[in-house]
Amino acid sequence: MAPSATAEFDALKPTPHGADNTNNIEGLDPKFTANVINAIGPKASPRVRQVFSSMIQHIHDFARENQITVDEWMQGVQLMNWAGKMSDEKRNEGQLVCDVLGLESLVDAITFKLASQAGDTATASAILGPFFRHDAPLLENESSIVHGVDDGEVTYMHGRVIDMKTNKPIANAYIDVWQASTNGLYEQQDENQVEHNLRGKFKTDADGRYAYYCLRPTPYPVPNDGPAGKILELLDRHPMRPAHIHLIVVAEGYKPVTTQIFDRIDPHLTDDSVFAVKDSLIVDFVPIKNNPKATLELEYNIALVPN
Amino acid sequence: MAPSATAEFDALKPTPHGADNTNNIEGLDPKFTANVINAIGPKASPRVRQVFSSMIQHIHDFARENQITVDEWMQGVQLMNWAGKMSDEKRNEGQLVCDVLGLESLVDAITFKLASQAGDTATASAILGPFFRHDAPLLENESSIVHGVDDGEVTYMHGRVIDMKTNKPIANAYIDVWQASTNGLYEQQDENQVEHNLRGKFKTDADGRYAYYCLRPTPYPVPNDGPAGKILELLDRHPMRPAHIHLIVVAEGYKPVTTQIFDRIDPHLTDDSVFAVKDSLIVDFVPIKNNPKATLELEYNIALVPN
Repeated sequence: MAPSATAEFDALKPTPHGADNTNNIEGLDPKFTANVINAIGPKASPRVRQVFSSMIQHIHDFARENQITVDEWMQGVQLMNWAGKMSDEKRNEGQLVCDVLGLESLVDAITFKLASQAGDTATASAILGPFFRHDAPLLENESSIVHGVDDGEVTYMHGRVIDMKTNKPIANAYIDVWQASTNGLYEQQDENQVEHNLRGKFKTDADGRYAYYCLRPTPYPVPNDGPAGKILELLDRHPMRPAHIHLIVVAEGYKPVTTQIFDRIDPHLTDDSVFAVKDSLIVDFVPIKNNPKATLELEYNIALVPN
Repeated sequence: MAPSATAEFDALKPTPHGADNTNNIEGLDPKFTANVINAIGPKASPRVRQVFSSMIQHIHDFARENQITVDEWMQGVQLMNWAGKMSDEKRNEGQLVCDVLGLESLVDAITFKLASQAGDTATASAILGPFFRHDAPLLENESSIVHGVDDGEVTYMHGRVIDMKTNKPIANAYIDVWQASTNGLYEQQDENQVEHNLRGKFKTDADGRYAYYCLRPTPYPVPNDGPAGKILELLDRHPMRPAHIHLIVVAEGYKPVTTQIFDRIDPHLTDDSVFAVKDSLIVDFVPIKNNPKATLELEYNIALVPN
């Protein structure tokens, strides 16, 4: 499937009819889209009716405005099917296709705004991405998630989880952390890394404190051997993500936050291939003194919104 | 994958925030979509730039207008991946998902209008559907495509392929025909049918004539054990297609036509689950006399547009 799909995408070229950006093509049934929407039956839920009506209208408008041909549409179908075929427990290519089109970042921002009404003091969200695992091991504070990586800069990351309204510490909050290794691969992508390398779960103490050793993150390309990579190639875009550490923080009585923090010195902060960077999530790694286990330090506090 | 995806789709319910149908959600970056579109590089082809810019704008508008949440978006991703996983050489579920949303019929109509500028005298197109095979056997005129079907009404289908401008016959035109059996299944879906049952390719004679024996078609449901079926269920719609025979007609010097003809007595002509019916493609099967091989007759002429 993959090679032929790739070859056919190379054929996506300007068509003779070009762009006229009108939604009226002479001779098309003007009621066609209304008929499709009106086929929705009475037992569809209000939310399903709303979402699918809008989706059908947008998809049809897109096809008419751009005079999408059967051949072009079939290339899209093949790309969709190719993404599904590539996806498994370790890889979600459908998600990655959405990510390079900015969709995960957008729905993340929508969801965050809807859920939080948080003001600017809460820790902002960023996309989950395709490499989270639900089964990261629970580790002791002050331990390291780095195993068998010789060329990384070990960082002592620590801080407190606090209530965004009262600034009081939150005890027994859980922090799920994961990051890619220096070769740009997460452990599930790389058979040379031990299971759960650069991944762990930590619990805050009575003062809301957490601490662990991780790596200063390094930039890496998203996997570009599938349809997401094909889209990036068609769009003349690079696959690089700026260096980042993934975090999910949950605590009883608070809204959970899924986020990423970004290294301020990374050259790709302004052109992240999945559009996830927010200014408030950019952090500074600084040299550490008197700690033989690390060369850098990152103090990072996480402010949660009460339920 | 399939069972959990199905279960999660059942959770698609009205969300508390409801619909406000605005594209402005306070606090979202108003430049976000423009940034994603502007990331397209200078080497992207003009057609790619046009199509993807429009697609990104529509997808983002859809997400904002409906306040799509991360959970809802992830259900869409799982549906996309599920469709890909179900697709193989015998089944194209991504195509079927598009079909139940009317997209294949729409791009077919767009393509036909763009290609033909044909006026009303040419045979209209209809969607290819997922069950065409490229390797149908070339058969002699007057032969039958029906093998081992006892409960069908055998029809003598015949006619001429003509030039839509001059009405003159076209010799050596090829007619690819395929249809489902009386159990609603195409041969590649049904291990009890012989290879290429109800499928064949015929060539017109010097007078432009073709003739073969086929079945009066019967209505059937599109396969509804996958994401297309899940969408139909969510939308409270039935999966039935009106009875039809698929045709592709090609001849040197003429634009090929892909079409379907529909039986006038079918109750689903007005609510085809894939929105493919056109009035000009509805035909009448009539009793035949003096032919022991058939009980019905269908005379059908096909008018092609010269190149």
